[in-house]
Amino acid sequence: MGVTATYLFPTHPEQRQKAEQYALGLTVGSWTDIPHLEQEQLKKNKGEVVSVEKGEVKDTVKIYYPSANFSADLPAILTTVYGKLSFFEGYELVDLTFDDELLAKFPGPRFGVKGIREQLNIRNRPLLMAIFKGVMGRDLSFFSAQLEELLAGGIDLIKDDEILFENDLTPFNKRITTAKEIIDRHYENTGQRALYAVNLSGRTNELHEKAERARELGANALLFNVHAYGLDALQTLRENDNIGLPIVAHSALSGVLSGQPGGGYSYSLMVGKLTRLTGGDFSLFPSPYGNVAISSSDALAINHALVEDSPFEQAFGVPSAGIHPGMVPQLMKNFGDNLVVNAGGGIFGHPDGPIQGTQAFRAAIDATVNQISLEEAAKTSEPLKRAIEEWGVLATS
Amino acid sequence: MGVTATYLFPTHPEQRQKAEQYALGLTVGSWTDIPHLEQEQLKKNKGEVVSVEKGEVKDTVKIYYPSANFSADLPAILTTVYGKLSFFEGYELVDLTFDDELLAKFPGPRFGVKGIREQLNIRNRPLLMAIFKGVMGRDLSFFSAQLEELLAGGIDLIKDDEILFENDLTPFNKRITTAKEIIDRHYENTGQRALYAVNLSGRTNELHEKAERARELGANALLFNVHAYGLDALQTLRENDNIGLPIVAHSALSGVLSGQPGGGYSYSLMVGKLTRLTGGDFSLFPSPYGNVAISSSDALAINHALVEDSPFEQAFGVPSAGIHPGMVPQLMKNFGDNLVVNAGGGIFGHPDGPIQGTQAFRAAIDATVNQISLEEAAKTSEPLKRAIEEWGVLATS
Repeated sequence: MGVTATYLFPTHPEQRQKAEQYALGLTVGSWTDIPHLEQEQLKKNKGEVVSVEKGEVKDTVKIYYPSANFSADLPAILTTVYGKLSFFEGYELVDLTFDDELLAKFPGPRFGVKGIREQLNIRNRPLLMAIFKGVMGRDLSFFSAQLEELLAGGIDLIKDDEILFENDLTPFNKRITTAKEIIDRHYENTGQRALYAVNLSGRTNELHEKAERARELGANALLFNVHAYGLDALQTLRENDNIGLPIVAHSALSGVLSGQPGGGYSYSLMVGKLTRLTGGDFSLFPSPYGNVAISSSDALAINHALVEDSPFEQAFGVPSAGIHPGMVPQLMKNFGDNLVVNAGGGIFGHPDGPIQGTQAFRAAIDATVNQISLEEAAKTSEPLKRAIEEWGVLATS
Repeated sequence: MGVTATYLFPTHPEQRQKAEQYALGLTVGSWTDIPHLEQEQLKKNKGEVVSVEKGEVKDTVKIYYPSANFSADLPAILTTVYGKLSFFEGYELVDLTFDDELLAKFPGPRFGVKGIREQLNIRNRPLLMAIFKGVMGRDLSFFSAQLEELLAGGIDLIKDDEILFENDLTPFNKRITTAKEIIDRHYENTGQRALYAVNLSGRTNELHEKAERARELGANALLFNVHAYGLDALQTLRENDNIGLPIVAHSALSGVLSGQPGGGYSYSLMVGKLTRLTGGDFSLFPSPYGNVAISSSDALAINHALVEDSPFEQAFGVPSAGIHPGMVPQLMKNFGDNLVVNAGGGIFGHPDGPIQGTQAFRAAIDATVNQISLEEAAKTSEPLKRAIEEWGVLATS
């Protein structure tokens, strides 16, 4: 039982020898100085170089760390495999592969794509999510009005802005109960369910109590700024059965971890694989199209890690920032079916308002699922027509 | 009440306009579109550009964020000021300045330099810390033997290796009780106290219970891999009066956060200022001399943040990795008096063993405090003489 770390190290003629030193230094310390009898005893702790593949700028190095050396938690695992190496310039940690026994210690998403689709009773199309906008400094009536409009337009999920924290005008508890009332009424009237992900924030040691209270008050989803707390905090929330709510994992601050050229973790590891393993039902990350952008290859790699074959439920990819209805065909081409189309300005900035903004997205999604071009669909959807006039259509590539 | 973030942004001819957009986008969203009456209402939430100083490669930008927008915790503050901006290439967060009211929400070190010196009854010299070496895969007798030798040599503090986690051979509880017995006996025999920082590790939601148990079992200090959990987790441990132990904050993994050229947080912010604010009594970071090195200016900036004037206790700087006795004059020149000299290989690799290795360091520290050269001191200290033969003396610069 153990974990194999895949690194990119700056290319070096004696990379294997260096890797051997790390494999020892990060486990049993040294080897050749140790008497034979002790070597026998230490064998099960010794790190091993799995492979060294030479590259032009970076070499790909894989090192196996036996789990005799660490407890089965990410703080211990990450500290072991990267605690020291993170200080070396250009040393990237791009992947972790867990042996089955270790993998089984992770929970994966509680609901995942399958469970969320069941809850919402939506099987055959990407979901549509909206972000509340401009709530900061405004009161609950502003919040309620936005929610009513989004629901009227046919929204599936709504999330808080990730920078909306506990505040006097729209307190956490009140947002939950207010949203619940509106969402419940909408369901009674239309039979359509919606999820509202309230931002779970505050001190680390209060998260569980707050989340449990949220559940009691009728919250039906949580937004969580994973990297402000660490992936293990997400995992503890996922594992708490008294919470038991879908978790929208937000990648705020992950640019520090994964956005530095030539260093740090890969996005696919942090925002993809480990977010899924620790229990994110949704992983929200910058789309490759907007103004807050990550590269297309990073975004696709995140999405791949969220849905690839694994013992765990699939998680929804939520490429975000700068999304308008004219991007839906490209989004679906890039991210496939397990996609949440997520918009703030693309809904609230619609020339006719958020109801039409939501309708425009729904029309774009339905058209694309049915292989109808947006231009064609705009002939029967005035909101989509108006959205295209405003923002155009992104040519699929 | 609020916080001012100091950034380095890649230079841009319209930096001020860009900064204004961020100051709005990360607070109230927009401004000019908003009716005058609402502007009045939103004024207390609006971010403000404090200054823009043009540079050749980077411009220094300061933005003020009113605390009406966030709860008084680092996850909320960091997400607000850097959650989105972290995704922009070359956007560095180098400092945070808290208004007094917000600053007062942080605890600072429980003991700090003053309290630790009182506990150890050492007033006039840097402290000496050793790291247990090669404990992984070995049993308690190995651990005990190392501790006995270090104490016999005159060690002040001993810490676990940061990659020693819960394990069957040297379990957390047993390390504590075994060390306590040996340290107590040493105190009875010599009148000299020593602190042993046991590695507090495991799942996020179990840290407090484990730390409280550690206290009950007689632990007298904790080692904590802050950045495997987040600074707020450190703060919660500091604030828990049922723990009440000195905390050695380890900077493992902070290379991800601060070691990326041109991006991320500054070391002085993460490993210096915020580690002190959230309650580290000691902050351990790579020395500028060893094989795991950070730049001299980064190391000095960390140290400055740990001891500069502030309402909080000073914290000890612990520049680590590759330290041998011949470096003590340079260490003291660079890091002053509030220094912990920390060694692993420099003690255990001494040609005559760890007792002499510890004695060599103590002799080097005493000599330097008394402004005697190491070469001179080596005439009356055989252990120091042997250490200098092995590793030489680093010329002070």
